[in-house]
Amino acid sequence: MTDAELAARFRDRRVLVTGGLGFIGSSLAHALVPAGADVVLVDSLSPQYGGNRANIAGLEEDVRVVVADIRDPDVLPPLVRDRDLVFNLAGQTSHLDSMRDPFTDLEINCHAQLTLLEACRAAAPAATIVFAGTRQIYGRPRYLPVDESHPIEPVDVNGIHKAAGERYHLLYHEVYGLPVSVLRLTNTYGPRMRVSDARQTFLGVWLAALVQGREVEIWGDGSQLRDFTYVDDAVTAFLLAASEPGALGRALNLGGERAVSLRELAELGVRANGGGTFRIVPYPDDRKPIDIGDYYADDGALRELLGWRPTVPLEEGLARSLDYYREHGPLYWGETP
Amino acid sequence: MTDAELAARFRDRRVLVTGGLGFIGSSLAHALVPAGADVVLVDSLSPQYGGNRANIAGLEEDVRVVVADIRDPDVLPPLVRDRDLVFNLAGQTSHLDSMRDPFTDLEINCHAQLTLLEACRAAAPAATIVFAGTRQIYGRPRYLPVDESHPIEPVDVNGIHKAAGERYHLLYHEVYGLPVSVLRLTNTYGPRMRVSDARQTFLGVWLAALVQGREVEIWGDGSQLRDFTYVDDAVTAFLLAASEPGALGRALNLGGERAVSLRELAELGVRANGGGTFRIVPYPDDRKPIDIGDYYADDGALRELLGWRPTVPLEEGLARSLDYYREHGPLYWGETP
Repeated sequence: MTDAELAARFRDRRVLVTGGLGFIGSSLAHALVPAGADVVLVDSLSPQYGGNRANIAGLEEDVRVVVADIRDPDVLPPLVRDRDLVFNLAGQTSHLDSMRDPFTDLEINCHAQLTLLEACRAAAPAATIVFAGTRQIYGRPRYLPVDESHPIEPVDVNGIHKAAGERYHLLYHEVYGLPVSVLRLTNTYGPRMRVSDARQTFLGVWLAALVQGREVEIWGDGSQLRDFTYVDDAVTAFLLAASEPGALGRALNLGGERAVSLRELAELGVRANGGGTFRIVPYPDDRKPIDIGDYYADDGALRELLGWRPTVPLEEGLARSLDYYREHGPLYWGETP
Repeated sequence: MTDAELAARFRDRRVLVTGGLGFIGSSLAHALVPAGADVVLVDSLSPQYGGNRANIAGLEEDVRVVVADIRDPDVLPPLVRDRDLVFNLAGQTSHLDSMRDPFTDLEINCHAQLTLLEACRAAAPAATIVFAGTRQIYGRPRYLPVDESHPIEPVDVNGIHKAAGERYHLLYHEVYGLPVSVLRLTNTYGPRMRVSDARQTFLGVWLAALVQGREVEIWGDGSQLRDFTYVDDAVTAFLLAASEPGALGRALNLGGERAVSLRELAELGVRANGGGTFRIVPYPDDRKPIDIGDYYADDGALRELLGWRPTVPLEEGLARSLDYYREHGPLYWGETP
């Protein structure tokens, strides 16, 4: 299927994106608006999360933005009422924050998710929902690559709550028939990601360091394996999950082109940046207990069921990301504007 | 180990039981008080849960009862401060209620559990915690008997939240070193259980029907397999989990003597009751989606690690339960007093 054929599926569709000013949410908007969708974005713009008005530069006149906190029980019900598709991306993503403040993580990643599902059940039972899950639910991999049958053994509060949030979605599909699918994301990267800290992924901090001429810090010994999804490929996966019947009721891993070590990733980053340095530093004590070791996904089910495949090699994705932050960095370095 | 040797481990121990006026909580109190423990029971006495003042008849002068809702963030911190053991049994147990009102289930089975663990972490980090988990987290068994490696695939909101509650406990053990163990209960039955409805287990309703001379209703075709733990055996398992180092950081299935079909269970109940009738009725529509089919536990790990084994055969347990409700039934039939 061509990009144009995929985009045509969303013409005139009424779409709600939770976390819509965030990294992946806004990237979806940049795909959906040209496709002719009617797009509503809801985002709290809380400074510690991924929402950033700069992310929808150029789309301001074409989307409806609702700045509101989905933890407020009055926010979601009126927003879902006339929608026929919900990309549910709002979430607390920081593992460390979830340990420091498990209650806030619970409110966002569990309570608000139930609020959304109850609102859809009551007012929009035919609306398709695609939920952004996470590899974090697997915990420390027992084998590699990790497929969807791997035990769910989260090693932090965030993983526990994201596992519950995913289960809610699948349950509301099974019990109430809501058309739901779940993508379990690994490290997603690219333009519009949060780079002011590691709350989305450590790679954001690396990109900022490279562009700003600071040294990249690799935690551990540099040998840890990870996989990375370029955001355009993630957007394609979300659009497929929202429109392919094979995704219904499924939780599917979204992976990347290949697994790389952190050291190799740093070398690729330095090369794509045309310069830079990195050094290997011991793993910080406060993160050790929630480190998961090596991870990379077996996303064969997604590829087979939805026909997805990654199209942007890591080198290319890193170069595009660095270009973006070289141009727009000041909107991302510090506090979210 | 004899019962007396086990009991001696709890002499002068300062114990908190959440859900302490409930079925298993009060049964623990009846074991702990004669053992010489200093026992505090906290219970909300909410009418839809298992708390019942009749459950501590004879112990009123020997335990401290705090009637309070553990969802109130101010309740648990002062209660855990001087304790060295917490039996954490407070929970919302109704599968159906969890579907009708997922938010209340979330507050009790997740939020309040985090409150307890945070309170222990802050004020009683050396206090042993034994958490009452549930087989409900496994969902529909993929194989029988179900051991602890079985996938966690809950089929209702209650199962999702109990899985999260269990994970919190194990996580606080792994990350913060709290001495925690978890028992995954199957159907526990015996004196002091809730019998006014099926919120604890359907068997409560059956016992009430037998004693009151009403017909027992078996939902389904009567062939479903289940296992049952008599409450005295469950109490022994909790005491072992609280005092055997082999339980630390583990989540262990607690099963029963053997698996029986519901029809056989009804026949045993009628016989133990010296009379009665049952009939088989179709499974109610509103429960079908959350039915789990056959279940019985492989509790070999518990038996091996803790030396536990069931001592009360089903026939004997049913007879003792029926005797109890014949004598004390009016305190249990209707609204909790």
